[in-house]
Amino acid sequence: MFEEKIRLGNLYDFYGSLLTKKQYEILGLYCVDDLSLGEISENLNISRQAVYDTIKRSKKTLKGYEEKLGLLSKFSSTRDKVNDLIDNIDSLNIAINSDEKKDNLLDEIERIKKALGDILDGTL
Amino acid sequence: MFEEKIRLGNLYDFYGSLLTKKQYEILGLYCVDDLSLGEISENLNISRQAVYDTIKRSKKTLKGYEEKLGLLSKFSSTRDKVNDLIDNIDSLNIAINSDEKKDNLLDEIERIKKALGDILDGTL
Repeated sequence: MFEEKIRLGNLYDFYGSLLTKKQYEILGLYCVDDLSLGEISENLNISRQAVYDTIKRSKKTLKGYEEKLGLLSKFSSTRDKVNDLIDNIDSLNIAINSDEKKDNLLDEIERIKKALGDILDGTL
Repeated sequence: MFEEKIRLGNLYDFYGSLLTKKQYEILGLYCVDDLSLGEISENLNISRQAVYDTIKRSKKTLKGYEEKLGLLSKFSSTRDKVNDLIDNIDSLNIAINSDEKKDNLLDEIERIKKALGDILDGTL
């Protein structure tokens, strides 16, 4: 449930501007401000059912955009690769600090360059 | 004109799947296969005016998505930063090869880590 809300928040960040103004407002209260359906209903003075329906419809819309475009998944994949690369750079840092052999350092650099190339391919 | 077509091709790669089937087909012939309006008109057996109108409307749609989402610009910016980083890694490679002082190598590593952090922020 919690993970699903995070995922919805990500979709909202990515594609939220394609929702209607009302959908954008209600879904923002739900997944950014983390209000309950009851709280949103009270805040906006609309029925709980209307809140529920709007969230359901908005979710469907956002998921539809991701199914078609897949850009969130592309971005997440880039993030993961960059995080891996930061680990590689940390290893290189340690290797230089401990006077590792030049050949080993250059091998590590090669790996880093390959990883960067992969990131670049993913942004095409 | 040529640059505009490249830009349109990028928008098409990014958001093309949100076009109607017909728009997708015609714009693909125009900016991926690089056919002229006359050629598309002949190929699909529709009037040149219809081709022109469809391309114009499709362009507007794609630009509208980018104005709202800005994801192409986000991706391009990531690409530029990754390319800069590849240059930095090349410099580091040369520096290690020419037995540059450890402190200088570590400084370079720090810069690279900072640049990776920037890339990560850009993918949020």
